[in-house]
Amino acid sequence: MAMLLDTYSLRALARGCAILGAGGGGDTRIGLLEALQATEDYGPVTLVGLDELADEELIMPCGMIGAPTVHIEKIENGSEGIRLREHLERVTGRRVAALMSAEIGGSNGLNPIVWAARIGLPVVDADGMGRAFPLVPQVSMHLAGINPNPCVMTDERGNVIVFRTISGDWTERLARAAAVEFGGAAASTEYTLTVAQAREATVLGTVSLAIRIGRAVTTAQRSPVAELIAEVGAFRLVTGKISDVERRTTKGFVRGSVVIEGIGEDSGRLVRLELQNENLVALEQGRVAASVPDLISVLDSETAEAIATERVRYGQRVTVIAMRCDPVWRTERGLQAAGPRAFGYDFDYVPVEELASAVT
Amino acid sequence: MAMLLDTYSLRALARGCAILGAGGGGDTRIGLLEALQATEDYGPVTLVGLDELADEELIMPCGMIGAPTVHIEKIENGSEGIRLREHLERVTGRRVAALMSAEIGGSNGLNPIVWAARIGLPVVDADGMGRAFPLVPQVSMHLAGINPNPCVMTDERGNVIVFRTISGDWTERLARAAAVEFGGAAASTEYTLTVAQAREATVLGTVSLAIRIGRAVTTAQRSPVAELIAEVGAFRLVTGKISDVERRTTKGFVRGSVVIEGIGEDSGRLVRLELQNENLVALEQGRVAASVPDLISVLDSETAEAIATERVRYGQRVTVIAMRCDPVWRTERGLQAAGPRAFGYDFDYVPVEELASAVT
Repeated sequence: MAMLLDTYSLRALARGCAILGAGGGGDTRIGLLEALQATEDYGPVTLVGLDELADEELIMPCGMIGAPTVHIEKIENGSEGIRLREHLERVTGRRVAALMSAEIGGSNGLNPIVWAARIGLPVVDADGMGRAFPLVPQVSMHLAGINPNPCVMTDERGNVIVFRTISGDWTERLARAAAVEFGGAAASTEYTLTVAQAREATVLGTVSLAIRIGRAVTTAQRSPVAELIAEVGAFRLVTGKISDVERRTTKGFVRGSVVIEGIGEDSGRLVRLELQNENLVALEQGRVAASVPDLISVLDSETAEAIATERVRYGQRVTVIAMRCDPVWRTERGLQAAGPRAFGYDFDYVPVEELASAVT
Repeated sequence: MAMLLDTYSLRALARGCAILGAGGGGDTRIGLLEALQATEDYGPVTLVGLDELADEELIMPCGMIGAPTVHIEKIENGSEGIRLREHLERVTGRRVAALMSAEIGGSNGLNPIVWAARIGLPVVDADGMGRAFPLVPQVSMHLAGINPNPCVMTDERGNVIVFRTISGDWTERLARAAAVEFGGAAASTEYTLTVAQAREATVLGTVSLAIRIGRAVTTAQRSPVAELIAEVGAFRLVTGKISDVERRTTKGFVRGSVVIEGIGEDSGRLVRLELQNENLVALEQGRVAASVPDLISVLDSETAEAIATERVRYGQRVTVIAMRCDPVWRTERGLQAAGPRAFGYDFDYVPVEELASAVT
């Protein structure tokens, strides 16, 4: 099933990654431009399934870490992935066979393609989330007990850091502090794993899923939002306009909230989103309408383009949708790592489909 | 000239390191207790001159990085040096032959002895400063063009970080951020060098100097302060009592100021010290009485024990002295790295002996 990621696929992928990003993972417009340029300069990247690699081969999960607000202005120079691979191979003494997005959401679904083009390696059709999350250990590899070490980080200047920590939480603390020092964003790899491990420890098929989602939106005959909702089985939370945005960049994250005032059939409703890089919860009159680990995405009501948390602005006409997360996040370990309480909320997770049916 | 560092030598060394610390480098009481315990548990450490090692052998400069205020309460667990050596050897592929204090001042003059006892290696009679300074690149190795990489850091929990940066300034930024994340203090090694390099790139004989200073104070027949001043050729700036202390721990440093109100023959005088881990400048009526890179130390007027910046308190009876720094700090590169302007002051360095003669 290996396929070459041509420019059409990359454009679809970018749209899909934005939607799966749940508001985070970095701006896909920049990621797409970088991927198109890398493809032009170095040739298209091959997308491979795990079945096309040998069990013992090594996969390098990678992406950018930091605040998406910073990433809009402080972009990579393209060589970060080369350094990540070089130093990962040096410290492990093993060869990397393929790259993988640590998170498929946002530009982090595209960055590994940029780097893979330069390096000349394939990208695996899987990721560590099936969405985007703000924290380093919020990956399926962590849930599967994969060691986060060594974590390699680099910036656009050429600085390199290798972390060997006592836990994924310490990797998060130290890598975040370094990302802040680098100016708010940096590139990293952690939770390196073999193909055999990846079969159990990753969310499979998410690159092709993102491409499929992007295509559904692009080729929509009627409302792109309606096509998208049908394609992924999403739940529409509200359609309206952005009436308030509060957003600040602090300690390597974007934090804040967004209020959507319903229009049309939703007139009179107010939905509030709270965010930390990604949209974490949707609240209406104190009631939770959707929450992590399920995906909450803000779409342009006309085009169904996802609007990242750092791009949300007063007055935008949007439709907020919620989607089921990968089942791995609904396990006890998954909820412990990325459920509402992991983000400081004092309520238990209820799957979005149950919340939606309670309303109807 | 190899000598075993017995408990008598260690006690003298601790006093000497405190005086050479210029207020910084960490509390020597804790460092001494650790060195005495390590000596009891693992046997005394050998102090060696560079002549007793082969040219190509590797020296590991090491110590603690962070805020001394934190270090009073958050002490090492003793195994930091073992990890520093293990990872330095792993990433360089070379064996470490001896440890060296990155800075002889404060407990950082003692920590390498604690670690050397555990590891079973000698300590070199040299250091990278001849005093203590707050920043990573403020070492003689930096002035000599030695590469700061790899820098290895570890904490008492067992986390390990390896930095390969584009400059010593970046090592400082990233290591400082990590030290803050570790709780305000951590252990590190950087500017690894060979014995041949060390002959030109270190301040020689500073461990035995510190022991000699400590002995002079301990065996003083009359005033210990007067004996010390005679031994090291120091300049007495003021004798009085501490009348004001302003001190805060921020971003991995202690910053603040101390005011000394003259008593006795100095009655009516007010001397103000400004500090960043170490005492940086002494000011009297807007005039600079002494400044970095020369050493400014606050001594107990009775015992000549040096009082570290984190231990200075209202009401203490003190004598402030200033001492000539090693000539390497008076070169253009030395002043660029650690002169008044390197700390944000808008005045040129004047050697303490010139300032003192201008007064007389």
